[in-house]
Amino acid sequence: MTRQIVLASTSTLFGETYLAYLQPTMKDLFAGIREIIFIPYARPGGISHDDYTARAADGFKELGITVKGLHTFDNPAAALESAQGIFTGGGNTFLLVKTLHEKGLMPLLKTVTDKGTPYMGCSAGTNIGGVSMQTTNDMPIVYPSSFVTSGMVPFNINPHYLDPIPGNQHMGETRETRIREFHTQNNTPVIGLREGSWIRVKGNEITLEGKLTARIFEQGKEAYEVETGSSLNFLQ
Amino acid sequence: MTRQIVLASTSTLFGETYLAYLQPTMKDLFAGIREIIFIPYARPGGISHDDYTARAADGFKELGITVKGLHTFDNPAAALESAQGIFTGGGNTFLLVKTLHEKGLMPLLKTVTDKGTPYMGCSAGTNIGGVSMQTTNDMPIVYPSSFVTSGMVPFNINPHYLDPIPGNQHMGETRETRIREFHTQNNTPVIGLREGSWIRVKGNEITLEGKLTARIFEQGKEAYEVETGSSLNFLQ
Repeated sequence: MTRQIVLASTSTLFGETYLAYLQPTMKDLFAGIREIIFIPYARPGGISHDDYTARAADGFKELGITVKGLHTFDNPAAALESAQGIFTGGGNTFLLVKTLHEKGLMPLLKTVTDKGTPYMGCSAGTNIGGVSMQTTNDMPIVYPSSFVTSGMVPFNINPHYLDPIPGNQHMGETRETRIREFHTQNNTPVIGLREGSWIRVKGNEITLEGKLTARIFEQGKEAYEVETGSSLNFLQ
Repeated sequence: MTRQIVLASTSTLFGETYLAYLQPTMKDLFAGIREIIFIPYARPGGISHDDYTARAADGFKELGITVKGLHTFDNPAAALESAQGIFTGGGNTFLLVKTLHEKGLMPLLKTVTDKGTPYMGCSAGTNIGGVSMQTTNDMPIVYPSSFVTSGMVPFNINPHYLDPIPGNQHMGETRETRIREFHTQNNTPVIGLREGSWIRVKGNEITLEGKLTARIFEQGKEAYEVETGSSLNFLQ
């Protein structure tokens, strides 16, 4: 089995419905699959695990795929090990990572995706595909036992990447400044993934997909853009 | 001695020089003081402790106050205990909090300000005046041993508070959504402090200062505005 992974910047594009722009990608990623497991722990806006799973199920309806929430299993590790496919939704990355570590599930995500279980993440669910959650945009609303994530890809991801807004008079740090500060303390490369972009892993090939370029940050280098369709295998 | 504390949203307003708008407040807070200690650990943009201390010194020059970096003392705890005044600059809150905990200095900030040592914080330096750093906007570039901060005020602060931008098509969470997510997991009240606002503590009186209103978030309530000059003593 080869690795089959999609790590998307966002679940939803402005003015579109949930997962709409990802439907063709999901059809390819989850081809032949009848049921997936949804990881609802990031709970956007504090939504319940049940309600969030219902929302995810709605996004998979047209593909004829049933969605089961990981929170409904007595043994979530066994559920992930036997899953036909996995989807992790967005929300708060600190809450997602804390919950996965508490349940001992973080390393398992790498184990099962290495074995070929198809995985899709959006936003927080994409952050956990990187080496650490240390380039999340989220607020530290809970304290995780570690910032280490699954390492499905050998770099970090900044989802919802935002270019500086021309003429902006706000004095908070830009996204680029924040990622530069990350590189004063860490040497893991970071991909700034704009809304509408996703990373596709097929076996050992990692590529940038979607219509946009992505911004790459490496320690000690100027940030630069890569074109859609580019291999990201050089990033490690 | 009574408590004398200023917690400012930002060090610098758009188009102004460093600490310019705070000069009258600093003159009052540090009246009669010849030398203060600067805590440079938040290192904005990865600036060195020495360079950051030089920038702070520049902001205190017109007041005739000398600035010494806390990093230059062999015994930083003793330095804080005997300081005439303390200023903590902005930057990355995770880095600031990690360093203060490593050096065992976090509880000391409350001890010395309770005894009357004047304290000013900006941005990250303001976050550490609250109960926890869990409403920072910063990226988790390092892993602190705890998110607990000094508790000079009995609530949390969100500096650089930003209202939703009308017509914005970015799908990342608004600041208000992030703070609401904090309240799904915590019950500490939060003040959204816009750039140009600061909190003034004199003894037991806590007031909102500056020209703007501030936004208050309490668990289970709709967010609301308070006028400048208002007492914040009810927030706990």
